Amino acid sequence: MKNKLDYSLYLVTDRTLCRGEFIECIEAAIRGGVSVVQLREKDASSAEFYSIALELRKLTRSYGVPFIINDRADIALAVDADGLHIGQSDMPLDVARSILGSEKIIGVSASCVDDALLALEEGADYLGVGAVFPTGTKSDADSVGIDELRRIKDSVDIPVVAIGGINEINAHIPMSAGIDGISVVSAIVASPSPLDSSKRLLDIVKKSKNI
Amino acid sequence: MKNKLDYSLYLVTDRTLCRGEFIECIEAAIRGGVSVVQLREKDASSAEFYSIALELRKLTRSYGVPFIINDRADIALAVDADGLHIGQSDMPLDVARSILGSEKIIGVSASCVDDALLALEEGADYLGVGAVFPTGTKSDADSVGIDELRRIKDSVDIPVVAIGGINEINAHIPMSAGIDGISVVSAIVASPSPLDSSKRLLDIVKKSKNI
Repeated sequence: MKNKLDYSLYLVTDRTLCRGEFIECIEAAIRGGVSVVQLREKDASSAEFYSIALELRKLTRSYGVPFIINDRADIALAVDADGLHIGQSDMPLDVARSILGSEKIIGVSASCVDDALLALEEGADYLGVGAVFPTGTKSDADSVGIDELRRIKDSVDIPVVAIGGINEINAHIPMSAGIDGISVVSAIVASPSPLDSSKRLLDIVKKSKNI
Repeated sequence: MKNKLDYSLYLVTDRTLCRGEFIECIEAAIRGGVSVVQLREKDASSAEFYSIALELRKLTRSYGVPFIINDRADIALAVDADGLHIGQSDMPLDVARSILGSEKIIGVSASCVDDALLALEEGADYLGVGAVFPTGTKSDADSVGIDELRRIKDSVDIPVVAIGGINEINAHIPMSAGIDGISVVSAIVASPSPLDSSKRLLDIVKKSKNI
């Protein structure tokens, strides 16, 4: 799993933004071409987080889509997720690695080359770089220019996905930095059709990557 | 460690209530006789929770006092805590056990005999029963009468500590139910002298247990 991941269209969930039922929304997004699903829950209790993670684990497994948990290594272990994503206010990478073992994917948020190199050195499996555009879904996000995104991609030999305010209008811009994929929240989950939005976003990524 | 625990005076932390520096407050409480320390953090980021847990792990280890983490199995693993406490809105006990293994202490919140028997069956190592008195530190706590507390203690063969609004004035009341100890938050951490308050509370517990 770890070495074969396709990061083209990396969905980060936000239940509060879904127009319809959450699981149906994510399933439509997967059918539309989402290649990785990350469950992000900022206010849920552990019981609720676990319960939702268990549902998404079943769904993603049935479609063969990798499933990543945001922040909580215990939830990742509890549902046998494929990996964990850690941001700058989460547990240190080496600590997360010691809990999860070497087989799980660990992704790290980075907003500059120094962050990226440190994460690489500490054993990150991929980087989420952002926010590349202003965003309403993550209030503490710093802005990262496309030039810095390209420098990050050129500095590391692990996959790089851009995140932050990416939609169908602007997705080609971060992709022009030669990165591996885009990570989106509202452009899919808040869409009237998560399926169609995912298809269109994936098309843009594929065109940018000449595939 | 697991079988030798003394639950007489079980401190649950609340950083927001401390009058002075947090670690000094907990150290004073330990010097005053606190026999178990549980770190409870409801709003901290994972990075912050981990960092504070690491500090308290060092402190408790230096005094030989058992250290329990509230809710977060990953933080418990990360700092090699002695155990985890799970409430009704936390991860299920069997899931926590599978993450932590058999050697770690797992305590469970209970507010009736049915909760207690279920937790016992699922392998809980001790029970925190409450709230026995009205409390400002946990807004969703249900009230448990002293008769129910006694029924719970009589129903299980694992240690039972009472929690919720316990202070130097009323501590003898839950102790009269024949339980193993009291769990306090504000009566120690919000005290002008956590050391003196801990000493006086421990005296009450010892007198109740005839030791």
